[in-house]
Amino acid sequence: MNMPVSPIIIPVILSGGAGTRLWPLSRNTRPKQFLHLHGENTLIAETLLRCRGELMDPNPIIVAAESHRFLVAEVLRELEIGGDIILEPMRRDSCAAVVAGALHAMGRSRDALILVVSADHDIPDKAAFGNSVRAAVPPALAGQLVAFGIEPVTPATGYGYLLPGAVIAGGPARELIKFVEKPDRETAEKYLREGYLWNSGNFLFSAKSFLHEAETLAPAVVAAVEQSYKSARQDHDFLRLDEPAFAASPQISFDFAIMEKTSKAAVVAVSYAWSDIGTWDAVANLATKDENGNAIVGHGHVRQGKNVFIHAEQTLVAVDGLTDIVVVATQDSVLVARRGHTEQVKELVGALPSAVAEEALSSLQQHRLWGHYELLEKRHDHEVRRVHIFPGGTIDRQSHKDRAEHWVLVSGQLEVVIGDRKMQIVENIAVTVPSGSVHQVKNTGSIMAILIEVHTFVEPKPVRVG
Amino acid sequence: MNMPVSPIIIPVILSGGAGTRLWPLSRNTRPKQFLHLHGENTLIAETLLRCRGELMDPNPIIVAAESHRFLVAEVLRELEIGGDIILEPMRRDSCAAVVAGALHAMGRSRDALILVVSADHDIPDKAAFGNSVRAAVPPALAGQLVAFGIEPVTPATGYGYLLPGAVIAGGPARELIKFVEKPDRETAEKYLREGYLWNSGNFLFSAKSFLHEAETLAPAVVAAVEQSYKSARQDHDFLRLDEPAFAASPQISFDFAIMEKTSKAAVVAVSYAWSDIGTWDAVANLATKDENGNAIVGHGHVRQGKNVFIHAEQTLVAVDGLTDIVVVATQDSVLVARRGHTEQVKELVGALPSAVAEEALSSLQQHRLWGHYELLEKRHDHEVRRVHIFPGGTIDRQSHKDRAEHWVLVSGQLEVVIGDRKMQIVENIAVTVPSGSVHQVKNTGSIMAILIEVHTFVEPKPVRVG
Repeated sequence: MNMPVSPIIIPVILSGGAGTRLWPLSRNTRPKQFLHLHGENTLIAETLLRCRGELMDPNPIIVAAESHRFLVAEVLRELEIGGDIILEPMRRDSCAAVVAGALHAMGRSRDALILVVSADHDIPDKAAFGNSVRAAVPPALAGQLVAFGIEPVTPATGYGYLLPGAVIAGGPARELIKFVEKPDRETAEKYLREGYLWNSGNFLFSAKSFLHEAETLAPAVVAAVEQSYKSARQDHDFLRLDEPAFAASPQISFDFAIMEKTSKAAVVAVSYAWSDIGTWDAVANLATKDENGNAIVGHGHVRQGKNVFIHAEQTLVAVDGLTDIVVVATQDSVLVARRGHTEQVKELVGALPSAVAEEALSSLQQHRLWGHYELLEKRHDHEVRRVHIFPGGTIDRQSHKDRAEHWVLVSGQLEVVIGDRKMQIVENIAVTVPSGSVHQVKNTGSIMAILIEVHTFVEPKPVRVG
Repeated sequence: MNMPVSPIIIPVILSGGAGTRLWPLSRNTRPKQFLHLHGENTLIAETLLRCRGELMDPNPIIVAAESHRFLVAEVLRELEIGGDIILEPMRRDSCAAVVAGALHAMGRSRDALILVVSADHDIPDKAAFGNSVRAAVPPALAGQLVAFGIEPVTPATGYGYLLPGAVIAGGPARELIKFVEKPDRETAEKYLREGYLWNSGNFLFSAKSFLHEAETLAPAVVAAVEQSYKSARQDHDFLRLDEPAFAASPQISFDFAIMEKTSKAAVVAVSYAWSDIGTWDAVANLATKDENGNAIVGHGHVRQGKNVFIHAEQTLVAVDGLTDIVVVATQDSVLVARRGHTEQVKELVGALPSAVAEEALSSLQQHRLWGHYELLEKRHDHEVRRVHIFPGGTIDRQSHKDRAEHWVLVSGQLEVVIGDRKMQIVENIAVTVPSGSVHQVKNTGSIMAILIEVHTFVEPKPVRVG
């Protein structure tokens, strides 16, 4: 085996999940990976920080949904991590995403190993994670597709299982004998007795070996993604895969297309804490409890209750006389569910009346390349937004026929162009953009600029001074 | 008995309750009587409409807490009902309030009967209520203090009970033998068997006879309230009782001070639907249920649940896998309680950490003589409000050293004075009030004026035009 002194591992972060399972906190516009549920940061930020270290390329590849591009860009900016963001024009499941990541990694180095990780899992022990990756390097360099298998602590029915076999080249990696889908309870108990491991959904392998294998096992996926990658175009910080080509890919998971079929699979067993945080019950299990088993994130209060979990960042939740309950409150929605019943949140959201569901699934916060904004109020004749613009952020020239805008800068400084008038405005200055006026905004200061915008959906009329 | 052809009954509406029992909807700043819980209107509006008819003085007397004066004024304005609003400078319980109402009624007519009613009860059948009042007129004119006793439908432990005796002068009024406090369950069951009635807390009597009786039974209350009434001052639409004098009154309920002790009590038995809506369980009981016993007011959804009550006007509440539960969500707070457990809401709110409680008990909406405003956002450096000003409403001259204000008129028209500049502004006009500037606002239009105000807590700086 020909092992270079410093193999480069390129992290490929899969950020494709839409995620209504943690509704109402997760939304189509802000799925699970962008939530702060456990640890210091959002799950994707923790994932990015976990994939750093001596063997790692400091510039990860993130494969993300087109609609989440600004959220991903914002995380990278906040962490001061460089990285390439590949945008999927539509969801084609994880096999296509891994192929896109592998192709991009090959462009950096034909010998690259890629560390394929989900953006929305929780692994608090970064050092243990790094050690497991290092243990997987030799088999990966030898062309094996290495899975990370978690020593199971319960007969969970929500995970896939891996059966390890003979030790490879002195270990700790072992052959992977069997890769199986989520079992029923009885089967899961049997798996525990027989030494199966949980499939963590994280993998290490050589991009070249993987693509070679994928060409055999999933040729239609490789063909479609290769074509969409060749025709991709760079747009700001984003690499946009070609839409028609990508659309031609079969919609199939990496596990099903590759790992269940390949003869080159290996597994490294690990025993660190891991969760895919797939339900509110999982979040509740990670939380610190008081002597009654109650856990409160944010503003909550429990009276005469046990095993109550409250997540309420902006509102106050008070629970009285109840046990085994999960309450999650956001500014516009509240979930109240029985503990152990939260796997059904997806169905619950799916059953909402369509008029309600659309609003319930979109977020009050919208992200853009220049920053983000939050809706404070929406009525038939006006709308109020709080707008945050990054230092250097520019809102391109635009005009709105149907509304006038009134801005009050409450923090920072901006260069504002309205029509042919250019102004520098600072805190506590208000400006009006008449409907139809072309305008452009740039944060020329060194701090986040915060603007309150009042949009009025009426025609402007003259002021009479008496 | 000397019975005039058309006795005038002056309704005395007691609006003194503070009411945290329906938290989070009821707040110190907006207690139960101002909520829309059942029927077409708020409870106080329904009460005012119930107290109209041929024998009734069309101008009721409302005895209210000083802090609720604008809410009361707004209800009267909306219903186009005249009426005198007497303000209690502090809470001294119902005996003092009834004395104040009786004194004021005597000022209108020395022979007045007064119909003392709670502002926050639910009696949907206005005709039946009117009939019961007419039935109480003869004994009231004869100097009896007539209570209205509800035929009980359950052995409720939350109400006082009345034991009727011999029929008076051909009925339907009867002597009141016993007036008893809230019983335990066993006693309540005995009361039902023995023909007791619920005390509805509504009464009819002559103001003069009542005051005469009160002078004997509660002389300190009468002395204090008489003094505070003599020294009262008219302020806009309000009669403000004198604070030091009123403070001297003992804090005692009308039931305890008068009804339990007087020998002049009578009772008219009625069988109309009545509720004091004292708990969320009571509200839930009044609501229309689906086949699973679920009731939703506002935006709610129940999946696999039974006997779920949801009240959510502005947010969406989704409940999954739970039974016998009450969820009440407002913009800033959520209550989740077991059905049958909502009598403890007062204790729950009392147990909130003090920092949280203050916010939880005040409302986002604040009422003023000129209209009301609602807080849309409050941050360290700015605040955003939606302000509603009635036609003709005037915000008096004022200035704020610590903040500048930026106003955008989204509806209606205003006359605005800022410093020595007077302007007429219309929809879609923005004006800035620099910190320290004296300003005044008047709605000179014929519709509600709606203003978005952005307050910035920073010093204004000059605009540079480039």
